[in-house]
Amino acid sequence: MAANRLYRKMSGGVTAPMGFKASGVRAGIKHSRPDLALIFSEMPARTTAIYTQNVVKGEHIAVCRKHLADNKCQAVVVNSGCANACVGPQGAKDAITMTKLAGRAMGIPHEDVLVCSTGTIGIRLPMAKIRAGVAAAAKTLEAGGGRAAAKAIMTTDTYHKEYALELNLGGRKVRIGGMAKGSGMIEPNMATMLAFITTDANVSASALSMCLKQAAEQSFNRVSVDGDQSCNDTVILMANGAAGTPLLTSRHSDWKKFSEAVQKVCHELAVMLIKDGEGATKFVKVSVHNARSNDEARAAARAIANSLLVKTSWFGGDPNWGRIIDAAGYSGAFFDSRKTDITFNGVAAVRNGQRSRGVSLKTLEKIYRKKEIAIDVNLKAGKGSHFVFTCDCSFDYVRINSEYMT
Amino acid sequence: MAANRLYRKMSGGVTAPMGFKASGVRAGIKHSRPDLALIFSEMPARTTAIYTQNVVKGEHIAVCRKHLADNKCQAVVVNSGCANACVGPQGAKDAITMTKLAGRAMGIPHEDVLVCSTGTIGIRLPMAKIRAGVAAAAKTLEAGGGRAAAKAIMTTDTYHKEYALELNLGGRKVRIGGMAKGSGMIEPNMATMLAFITTDANVSASALSMCLKQAAEQSFNRVSVDGDQSCNDTVILMANGAAGTPLLTSRHSDWKKFSEAVQKVCHELAVMLIKDGEGATKFVKVSVHNARSNDEARAAARAIANSLLVKTSWFGGDPNWGRIIDAAGYSGAFFDSRKTDITFNGVAAVRNGQRSRGVSLKTLEKIYRKKEIAIDVNLKAGKGSHFVFTCDCSFDYVRINSEYMT
Repeated sequence: MAANRLYRKMSGGVTAPMGFKASGVRAGIKHSRPDLALIFSEMPARTTAIYTQNVVKGEHIAVCRKHLADNKCQAVVVNSGCANACVGPQGAKDAITMTKLAGRAMGIPHEDVLVCSTGTIGIRLPMAKIRAGVAAAAKTLEAGGGRAAAKAIMTTDTYHKEYALELNLGGRKVRIGGMAKGSGMIEPNMATMLAFITTDANVSASALSMCLKQAAEQSFNRVSVDGDQSCNDTVILMANGAAGTPLLTSRHSDWKKFSEAVQKVCHELAVMLIKDGEGATKFVKVSVHNARSNDEARAAARAIANSLLVKTSWFGGDPNWGRIIDAAGYSGAFFDSRKTDITFNGVAAVRNGQRSRGVSLKTLEKIYRKKEIAIDVNLKAGKGSHFVFTCDCSFDYVRINSEYMT
Repeated sequence: MAANRLYRKMSGGVTAPMGFKASGVRAGIKHSRPDLALIFSEMPARTTAIYTQNVVKGEHIAVCRKHLADNKCQAVVVNSGCANACVGPQGAKDAITMTKLAGRAMGIPHEDVLVCSTGTIGIRLPMAKIRAGVAAAAKTLEAGGGRAAAKAIMTTDTYHKEYALELNLGGRKVRIGGMAKGSGMIEPNMATMLAFITTDANVSASALSMCLKQAAEQSFNRVSVDGDQSCNDTVILMANGAAGTPLLTSRHSDWKKFSEAVQKVCHELAVMLIKDGEGATKFVKVSVHNARSNDEARAAARAIANSLLVKTSWFGGDPNWGRIIDAAGYSGAFFDSRKTDITFNGVAAVRNGQRSRGVSLKTLEKIYRKKEIAIDVNLKAGKGSHFVFTCDCSFDYVRINSEYMT
């Protein structure tokens, strides 16, 4: 991660950059919480997006793809409480209608409006409520509306998630802001969530696309709450150029700086997703080193992060490293367990495949009582490495997900 | 599964077949429960085994492989409470020592003794206790000792698991009996468990091996509690020929009948494993039909069976089919979700990718309150199919696995 001198954290989220407005309202899709958000740019913004790899897809995704054929948009309308997935042909029509309602309310072509939905699968959007909600959201758009929007996209999230920073590009300040929602169905490869990132920098379409892919690979694609990958995951990055900086391409000397700043915003949002994972009481970074390949390192890190036995041992504060080495063992990664080292927050728990002498169970238990645990697994089988951010599995995870209504 | 006329259920387990004795004692590896079992055949038995595919392996596995190079053995010594895995070079020595102790106590070559361990990873076998325990177990071997053995191999199992049946082979009665233990770290591909099957039929080594592979593929390889595959899984099938039947090969007309009977024993033991899965309150059969291939069907069935969101919805009695179709969607199976059908106990929940009209939520909730649920997913993408037996994820699963001591 880049050093602080490259960028400076600021308050706010998607409306921190110039030229963006947002709002969040109660449309009535959910009982009594805000459930409809708008993001609006005063001028068309170059825009790129990435989507879930689930073969089952929410209806908004096809609409986003179509409306982004020209790599630009000017607004995004988002609802929570209903995924608009698996509802038959009406779902696609409803998604398009949402863009039309939003476009009309803001006076822009509906092809410049993107749409996202999150919530329960299999129920139809209540279009009368959406209609009224979009109108209300358009009326309440404001330059400080980022927080209201961040609240309106929440589902089982316990707090809204925003992050913003500013940096200098060619002598001028530009800002990057973002918001995201979790918090179940979180798994790498377009982790289950929505995230919206805005910037007032002026960036070429291809540079923007490359930038988001790289940033997601280091952030959203490395988080896992429960191993379930949603059918609605979407990340959208909009660059409206309002800061007046010259066009940034990937050949520009400032490219790396900008790219790292976008990555920083994505990283912070991804970490918030995990910390607010359903029922999460612990934040864990699982790193696998020296696997035969990066792919095998990824497989091992994900197997460990998604192992129910490992997750419950984190919750219980039981430093049961046997479950960790076992999960690596069935991940598909190949290694000789007699050589494996494992550390917890840098303290050796396992050396060459067995309990580390001289490190007491008490010491390991003390580490496992911390809120943040770093687990490093050295397979000594090659040069591949990968890390994943994840959380434990608690009683509350089971409670939240067994009570959550269809 | 074969019809009843082919075989008849009988009481007992591994000592139901003639010529087998067994015992189970408290060696003191665990606090106050039986933890050491012996199975003994009065004559050498043709024997075959299958093992975990985890690259991390308990030390007993190498010893079993070596001692089964001649496809025969006469006894198995099993301990619970300690996996004898990830303990360094001493582990291999301890496993061999166990076979020597048992061989000496029973007066047979140690190469004719197999050894299995189950329990916590990373701690050494307490060999002084094992030594005394093996001696005590050898002294208490008896023809009715199957149940004591089945109890001594338990870990977090809440009850012992035995099954036996008899059938006619060429005019003579033969018996097949088995015992197994679960109940966490259960996942297809040598599900996490130990199982021991005995028969007094006379079966060729190659037929025995084929028979166990086929039976496991239809039973133990189709069960999943938590998706965690143990490093100690082992299934052993011993045929001692004590019934006096002629040698059975895979070309014999009775082969199919015998093979189906072995499969029945494995099936019953596998079902018991799931029903006693850690914290399980529901038994669920997930079948995927008409995937593009059997492999894709397996991937989809396993993704559904292992999805934490799906498992918690079973626990909560919430017929949330959206989570099921979502899990199939990220499994790697390819299909068009607009064509997918899903039934719960034969009742249509989803037709062509959307809620089945005319079937109320109440009806589905009523099915989800049952102790056994059959979920059938028709992907309409090809001819591949697969099924998996699994259970829900409850508060108790989290409790058991967050409290279980290292």
